[in-house]
Amino acid sequence: MDKKALYSLSYGVFMLGARSGEKKNGCITNTCIQVANSPTRIAIAVINTNYTCDLIKESGVFTMSLLDQSITFETIKHFGMQSGRDVDKLDGLPLPEDENGVPYMNWGSCAMISAKVVSSQDLGSHTLFIGEVLDAKVLSENEPLTYAFYQSNIKPKPEVKKEDKKIVGWKCKICGYVYEGETLPADFECPLCGHGPDDFEPIYES
Amino acid sequence: MDKKALYSLSYGVFMLGARSGEKKNGCITNTCIQVANSPTRIAIAVINTNYTCDLIKESGVFTMSLLDQSITFETIKHFGMQSGRDVDKLDGLPLPEDENGVPYMNWGSCAMISAKVVSSQDLGSHTLFIGEVLDAKVLSENEPLTYAFYQSNIKPKPEVKKEDKKIVGWKCKICGYVYEGETLPADFECPLCGHGPDDFEPIYES
Repeated sequence: MDKKALYSLSYGVFMLGARSGEKKNGCITNTCIQVANSPTRIAIAVINTNYTCDLIKESGVFTMSLLDQSITFETIKHFGMQSGRDVDKLDGLPLPEDENGVPYMNWGSCAMISAKVVSSQDLGSHTLFIGEVLDAKVLSENEPLTYAFYQSNIKPKPEVKKEDKKIVGWKCKICGYVYEGETLPADFECPLCGHGPDDFEPIYES
Repeated sequence: MDKKALYSLSYGVFMLGARSGEKKNGCITNTCIQVANSPTRIAIAVINTNYTCDLIKESGVFTMSLLDQSITFETIKHFGMQSGRDVDKLDGLPLPEDENGVPYMNWGSCAMISAKVVSSQDLGSHTLFIGEVLDAKVLSENEPLTYAFYQSNIKPKPEVKKEDKKIVGWKCKICGYVYEGETLPADFECPLCGHGPDDFEPIYES
C-alpha cells in the first residue's frame, strides 16, 4: 500500500469548537462531510487524544467553522498548534456562541455549522461523530480554505528582510484586521477580536 | 438554518467502483475522508437508491478512484449521469480491477484506494460505510479534482461556433486521449479505453 495515495483526498480546513460546562475549546481539523439530507447530517473525525474530542464526548455538541482564504497562519497556530489542556484558547478571545454556548469563528470563516452528536464510533486513532445539523450560517462571501491552499498560500515561507522599507500599516496576526497608518497607538485594541499591539505585525510598503 | 452554508464544505470528486459477483458498476461521489490510521480507514457516504450502494452492501468491498484535473466531462457523465440498473457502464470499458475484482480508473485519476467495509450505518438518504484500506496506489502526478474545480472548469459551458476552423486532431470524449491529425480513421480504436470514432470530438486550430 502506498499511503501517499491518500494525500490526494481533498479536504477543507475547519475550526472545530466544543464546550462542556464551563470548559470551552477549539482545534483545527480537516475532515467534515455532509452524509445525509432530511435530517441534514455531517460526519467528522477527531483525534482521540485531542481535548476537543473529550469535550464533544462529554457534551454531545460541537460547531464547525469553515475557514476561508482570509484566515491568518496565526489563527491556525492558535487553535491548531497548542492543546486546550495547557492553554485556555478562548481566554480573551470574544467569539460568538451557538444556541448550546459552543464558540465559533466570526472572522476568517465563510460559514458555520452547529451540530449535536447522534452517534459516534471509536476507530482507534480517531472517533467518528455523526452530527445532526441544528443550525448553519453563511458568514462571508470568501472562498473556502482548502488544505491544498493552506499548504501553498497560508503556511509561512522563509521571511525576506524588510527593515529598510517604510511601514504603511499594521495587521492583526489573530484575525487579519488591518490598521492603516505608520504608528499603531500603544493602547490600540483590535476592533474585530480585541487583541492589543503585541498581536499586530507591520505591513511594509511594496 | 441556511443550507447554503453547507455548500462551503470542500470535496474531491471520485469514481466509486463496486462489484458483487458478476455485477460491476461505478458512480461519481464527492464524499471520502480518511478517518483513522493503523489500520488506515476511510469513510464514504453513498446515496441509498444508487445501484452502487446495493453492490457494496452485498459484497462489502469497493474502490475509490480519485479523479484528477485531466478528467473529461464525458467520463463524469458516463459514470455519474446514468444508472447501472439501466446500462452496463463497464461494458466495453476495459478498466483494471483490484484484488477483489472491483474496477477502478486508469485514466483521469491521480490515485486509487481499495477497501473492505468494516461497518455501515443507514442515515436515511445515505449509507455511511467505514472501509479498511486494503491497497492504495498513486496513478499520476496530476492535481486532484475538487468539486469547485469541476464546477468552474470541467462542466461544459455554452459552445462557440467553430465550424470555419481547421481540424487539427481528435479527442476521445471518454478518456481524453488525443489523436493528432485532420482525419480520424473510420476503424480507429482509442488505445487507452478502446472506444471508437463515435466517441471522439474534433480539436480545432486555435
